[in-house]
This record gives sequence, structure tokens and C-alpha cells, in this order.
Amino acid sequence: MTTPTPRPFNFSAGPAALPEEVLQTAAAEMLDWHGSGMSVMEMSHRGAEFISIYEKAERDLRRLLAVPQNYRILFMQGGGIGENAIVPLNLSRAGVVDFVLTGSWSQKSQKEAGKYATSRVAASAEASGFTEIPNPASWQIDRDAAYLHICSNETIHGIEYQQLPDLKALGADIPLVIDCSSHIASRSIDWSRVGLAFAGAQKNLGPSGLTIVIVREDLVGHALAICPSAFNYELVAKNQSMYNTPPTWGIYVAGLVFDWVLRQQEGDLTGLAAIEARNIRKAAKLYAYLDGSGFYRNTVAPTARSRMNVPFFLADESRNADFLTGAKARGLLQLKGHKSVGGMRASIYNAMPEAGVDALIDYLREFEKSAA
Amino acid sequence: MTTPTPRPFNFSAGPAALPEEVLQTAAAEMLDWHGSGMSVMEMSHRGAEFISIYEKAERDLRRLLAVPQNYRILFMQGGGIGENAIVPLNLSRAGVVDFVLTGSWSQKSQKEAGKYATSRVAASAEASGFTEIPNPASWQIDRDAAYLHICSNETIHGIEYQQLPDLKALGADIPLVIDCSSHIASRSIDWSRVGLAFAGAQKNLGPSGLTIVIVREDLVGHALAICPSAFNYELVAKNQSMYNTPPTWGIYVAGLVFDWVLRQQEGDLTGLAAIEARNIRKAAKLYAYLDGSGFYRNTVAPTARSRMNVPFFLADESRNADFLTGAKARGLLQLKGHKSVGGMRASIYNAMPEAGVDALIDYLREFEKSAA
Repeated sequence: MTTPTPRPFNFSAGPAALPEEVLQTAAAEMLDWHGSGMSVMEMSHRGAEFISIYEKAERDLRRLLAVPQNYRILFMQGGGIGENAIVPLNLSRAGVVDFVLTGSWSQKSQKEAGKYATSRVAASAEASGFTEIPNPASWQIDRDAAYLHICSNETIHGIEYQQLPDLKALGADIPLVIDCSSHIASRSIDWSRVGLAFAGAQKNLGPSGLTIVIVREDLVGHALAICPSAFNYELVAKNQSMYNTPPTWGIYVAGLVFDWVLRQQEGDLTGLAAIEARNIRKAAKLYAYLDGSGFYRNTVAPTARSRMNVPFFLADESRNADFLTGAKARGLLQLKGHKSVGGMRASIYNAMPEAGVDALIDYLREFEKSAA
Repeated sequence: MTTPTPRPFNFSAGPAALPEEVLQTAAAEMLDWHGSGMSVMEMSHRGAEFISIYEKAERDLRRLLAVPQNYRILFMQGGGIGENAIVPLNLSRAGVVDFVLTGSWSQKSQKEAGKYATSRVAASAEASGFTEIPNPASWQIDRDAAYLHICSNETIHGIEYQQLPDLKALGADIPLVIDCSSHIASRSIDWSRVGLAFAGAQKNLGPSGLTIVIVREDLVGHALAICPSAFNYELVAKNQSMYNTPPTWGIYVAGLVFDWVLRQQEGDLTGLAAIEARNIRKAAKLYAYLDGSGFYRNTVAPTARSRMNVPFFLADESRNADFLTGAKARGLLQLKGHKSVGGMRASIYNAMPEAGVDALIDYLREFEKSAA
């Protein structure tokens, strides 16, 4: 199975581009996975074939993200919005939970948790229009909170923590929960600072409908009585993510992506380190172009800018439709910004080749000239 | 993309066989759906391309099952086990809910609902070892219950309602909830008797991770305050199943399956009627062979036997492993029974060709002779 022409570059914020090699494999194995005579979609989740797919995916993700042995990796359903309820249902003990608001996603999470716990705001960047991350030294953390939740990469506002907060150093010895949906597997995670990380798969890992939860063992087993069984971390963990039928196709594709990431190379670097180096380079050149331009602007504080999601605005917003039409004609897809922010957004996840960023910059330059 | 040799017949109870044609299409479109330059997995769920896929799937399913206009079709996540909580979270109003127990699935549902409501048993076939359906005339229904829940096809015990109960005629004017995961789209549904139907997709519709909910409009909008937003029918309905990112690949594959069902023909029959006629014939010949044999037995009352899931036992259970090995060698896959019942189980969903049932019967006959 080959593509006759080069594929366009897809800047969707999610569901998002997948490595072409992964798609080729998924297509080639569609009717017969490894001589089994079955598509992965047709396999019992309890059969030897799928168990081997699941176990490799779990093992590769653990290796990729250097997940310590005392953390469980759960393959679930429900996405980030589902986890906004599922995390407090499992971890809050109906007490107090703290949030730092840096954009739409942390706002949504904070609101949803209020159904199950006393949901506090420890700090908020709302006054800035969500263009920065409040200095952790200023956070008003409840030291008795069940956990503190941040969105470590805000997909819509284009804000990313370049370093995870060290809550213990901030005087609060409570678990940190990170919603890392839109930058998981794009950079390393300092697990010594994290109690639970969750991510919808549809940005950097695979198709929508699969949700990854990585949770420290001591945080499992405290679900509220009203927690649905399908979303009870203890039941999911005890049953190797097969308490209910897991999203098997999503696990398979994510497994292909994990394998792809592990094989990446950049100079002397391999795997996640290689991907991260490439992501740094891709983001740096795009922001440098935008900052040097008189026509485009990104309004996020430079220290808080996301490597994955780059929102930007045209000086003349009446040209937005022309910009998108011209982009599509050049094979640069899905650049429209989120409706709540407006403008444009280039999501440059792991699967976006550096050539895609170069092609975008070429087009930005060309369009700027034509608009002069 | 062609398969060099005939595919084996896959009798998995779920995730289960898909029509070969659907797999061929999914493989062929993997890198470039209809000239979009994207895999369906890479499309924004809010983009024109995916919206067209979603709308066609919704329209085709409505046509296929003759779903009246006052029912909403929701594409969700969480599977049957998720819905065991999600249904009472949305419909119970924390009052009384009734269940009829006919096997493992209705038992699980009744237990889970107890977290959110007073969960009653209106009737149970447990004393029979779940080999029959209690006569509806004997059901002790609470006329003030928020709904009565049945599993209209018990995947594990192989029991199927040949006719849905008419609760009104039984003196209880309350909504009927049916878990129809393992026979949806295998036969018509009498919507005049149903308030809500739900189904995990992974038997007759597509990959696991997609859950279909079809609910009468007046039952939407009464969720408990503790219902997670992602699973609140009102929010899901108002946002055309895009309150959170839906399982886009699952919707796409299910859409291909709906299209396939609609194009089926048997004599003068088309679509669901054709599929149902074929299913009746497939099941009849398999049960006839089992009943006529001295070596195999199915213990379900003939009037309650499932057309989709046929559990059976060998007279000499010490031959079980031999039976499965021989079956696999002949390309008859995943015939092992569920661990809670034992023996064998042949799931003969829509995608199982009649030739697969014929091949199974040939093998049953051959094995019986060899065991004589």
C-alpha cells in the first residue's frame, strides 16, 4: 500500500496527524494481523493475540516515558472530559481539590470536580487572558487538599509548563495531577513530582476514544461509592484494563505509535529524547518567525509557550478566510484557531515532520508579502 | 488490497468479526479518506469531513433500525459496563429501577444501578441456571419505577427475547430499557415498547470503544447532579455527540457496517430484513444440528435461544482442548465458551457468513464421529 503523492501536512489540534508509517502498518495488517487471520478489531480482548498487543503497548509506553514500577498504566475510555469527573471520583475522597487555571481545559476540569468535592482555585491566569502561567511561589495551595490539578499543556490557549511544579518544595505535600493530553510523549515527565497523569490519545498517541491514565499505586483504591465501575481505577488496574472491553483498536494504534517514537533518532539521541529535540527545534523556528514578523503575532508569554500548539493572529483578521484557503491549496490543513480564541492555530505534535513546519513558515512568509 | 487466501471464520463473542468488505474499505482509505489527504483517525471531529461521516452514520443507523424522529441517537464511550452506571445516572432520578435477570449481563446491570437508585429484581431466571426467560405475566413490576431494564440478548448465556415485553400491557406504564449490545442490527426493534436502547459496538456494529445509545427525547434531561458531563445524555444530545471528542474511528467503521447492512439482499428482502432472514436460517441450522446430535448439547429453552450466541457443551468435556485445536486448524476461530459457563460458544453475528455456520457444522459432525 503506497500513497501516490506526498501527503498534506495536517495541523489539527486533535484528533491529529499520525506518523505515516503507522498508518501504512495499520492498513497492511487490517485483514490479517501477523498471520492470525483476524483484524485487530475482530479479536477478543481476552485472546492471546490481543493480550500480546496490549502487553507490548504497556511495556513500550512505560519504557518511553520512564514510568516507575509503582505507577499503574491504565487504558480507559472517556477522554479528557471524562477524566475531569473520573479523577475526582477516584482521588478526591469528597474533600478539597485544588486547581491552577491557565486556560479552557483547567477551567473545565475545575468546574467538573465541583460535583464531587470542594473545588478550589489555587491560582488563575484568567486576568491575563490566559497568556501566562502564575508563578508557583504565588499559588495559594490548600495543604489538606486531596490533590492539585494542572493542565500541563493547554491545547486551546497554547500554554505549556516547561517544568512541572514541585508541590513539596512549595510546602504542600499533596499529589500533583496533570492533564497532559496534548503533550504526552512529546517530552519527558518528572514522575517524582506527579501523582497522576492522564491524556486523551487523540493528539500525540493515536485515535480518539482511548484515554491513558498513569497513577501512583497508593492513590488507587479510594474511589467514591458513586464511581461507575467501568471508571474505577482499582477495578481497571486489577483487571489489566479489561474490566470492561477496552478500546482495542486504539490500543493497537497507540502501540504502533509508541514503537515509532522509540525508534526515532536525532543525532546521538533516540526515542523520546530525539522526539523532544525535534519538537524544540520545530517550535523554536515557528515562534521565531512569528515574533520576527510584523504581520503575525502570538500573545503568550515566551516562557509559557507550548511546543505543541501555536495559536497566532493575522494583523488583518479580515484576511483569515483567504489565509486558510491558500493554506489548504498548499496542503497545509486544519489551521483554523479554536472558536473561543479565534485566529489560527498550528498544532505541531510528534507526528508533524519538521518539513511541515518549514512549509508552514514558507507559506506564512508568502502570505505576509501578498498582504503587504 | 486483497487477501491471498480465504479468511478464517471468527466466532468471537466480541470484539467480533466484521464484514470483509468493511475491512477492505477501511484499509484502502487509511491514508487518504475520499481525497482529503487524511486518515479518518487524523480528522478534527469538528471538521467538514468528519461531520459528513458522522451525519451519514447517524442517518443510516436511523434508517436501518427505523428509529422514530422522537428518539435521539448518541455515539458515546464506556461500553455496556459504562452504561450500567450511565443509564441510572441519567434516568433513575434516584428512585426505584426494576430489572429482569436472565444472565450475567442483566445481573451486572442490576448490581451497578444500586449505586444510584433502589435497584429491584422484578423477575429472575437464576434458579434455572439462566436457561430461560421468566414469563412476563409473572414479573413483579414496580409501577412507580423510573424504568425496567432487560438484557434483550445475553451474550454469555445465549438467551434472547424473541419479542420485547409490552410493559403497558403488563400494567406498568414505565419506560423499557434494553441492553441490546449483542444483537443490535440483527433484527428489527419495536420502538413502541422501548424507551432507551444501548449497545456496545463491538459485536454487530464495529470496534470496541464506541457505545450507541438510542433514547426517547422525553427521557433526556433528568440526569442526577453527580452524572459526569461526558456521560450526560442531555449534553451529548445537544452537542450532536461532540460534547467531548467522540471515538471517531469507531463511528467511521460502524458507518461502513451500517452501509453494508443496508445493501444486504436475501431473495426479495433487503437491508435489515435480509440480515434477519439470514440470521434466522443460520441459527436454525446450527441449533438443529446440536439438538440432533448425541454428542453436543445446548441447554437453553428453545423459545429463549439466541440467534447470535450459541453456547454448547461436548458430552465428553475432556475433549474440549482437542475440539478447539481441531477447529483452529480448520480456520474456525475463538470458539471457547465464556469462563463463567464453560464449554463452547459460537457467536454468529451479522458478519458471519452462512458458509461459516456450514463449516462449523461440518466440523461438529466430523469431530463427533472421531470421538465415537
